[in-house]
Amino acid sequence: MRLIDEHTGLDIIDRRECMALLAGERLGRVAVVPDGVRPTVLPVNYVLDGESIVFRTAPGSKLSAAVRNGYVAFEIDGADGLAHTGWSVIVTGRAEEIEAADELERARRLPLRPWAEGEKGHFVRIPTTHVSGRRIVHRAESTA
Amino acid sequence: MRLIDEHTGLDIIDRRECMALLAGERLGRVAVVPDGVRPTVLPVNYVLDGESIVFRTAPGSKLSAAVRNGYVAFEIDGADGLAHTGWSVIVTGRAEEIEAADELERARRLPLRPWAEGEKGHFVRIPTTHVSGRRIVHRAESTA
Repeated sequence: MRLIDEHTGLDIIDRRECMALLAGERLGRVAVVPDGVRPTVLPVNYVLDGESIVFRTAPGSKLSAAVRNGYVAFEIDGADGLAHTGWSVIVTGRAEEIEAADELERARRLPLRPWAEGEKGHFVRIPTTHVSGRRIVHRAESTA
Repeated sequence: MRLIDEHTGLDIIDRRECMALLAGERLGRVAVVPDGVRPTVLPVNYVLDGESIVFRTAPGSKLSAAVRNGYVAFEIDGADGLAHTGWSVIVTGRAEEIEAADELERARRLPLRPWAEGEKGHFVRIPTTHVSGRRIVHRAESTA
């Protein structure tokens, strides 16, 4: 069955495939709102650990502060420039710092390289409770 | 001269190179805060037109509403998975709908394909007044 987003004409990617896409990528982007008004986007290297996105942040960094103070959005996407097709998966929710000793030990064993060298201090988790995905499926060429 | 972000150890990409990177890509991501609290990220096909990011949105869509109601962040990035290097460029500011007749005519001639088929209604511009870029430059392998 194909589900189409009526507003955009995009194919809806179901949760199972969203999770498979999340498992297959390493570079994602986290949108945060550090001052409560102006969003920003920061690239992160991540892994899907069970049902959670896990990445590392530097202590005291903008990302570290922002993820602890509110809602975040995590995004991955892929595109085929020649075919003009693409997909995106978004996870939204509250990020939480991994603090329990046993969970930290597990996190440290993840194949998780920080995007930046300084970003080694904290492990952050975003539950994939709210995940959605869209894929472009082009019909006839309709734009000039 | 190399500028290093002291906090993250990332190389800072100067404005000139940020603009060149923005000119060279076609797929970006826009972070918006539709409800003023929870950010989300939406992929867009865009072009750099002079000093502005320009993309299209569907009338009545989440993106269309969000970009008119506040601040946005626009992001592009690239990574070399094997070398573990990468870069990102972020533009932050207020997005504005292109409405003047002469500007609309110009926008319609841009090589601008919407990410989704339905996204044809509005042209949106984000000035690149605030642009920043970071590049990972790895020194010795320091993590296991």
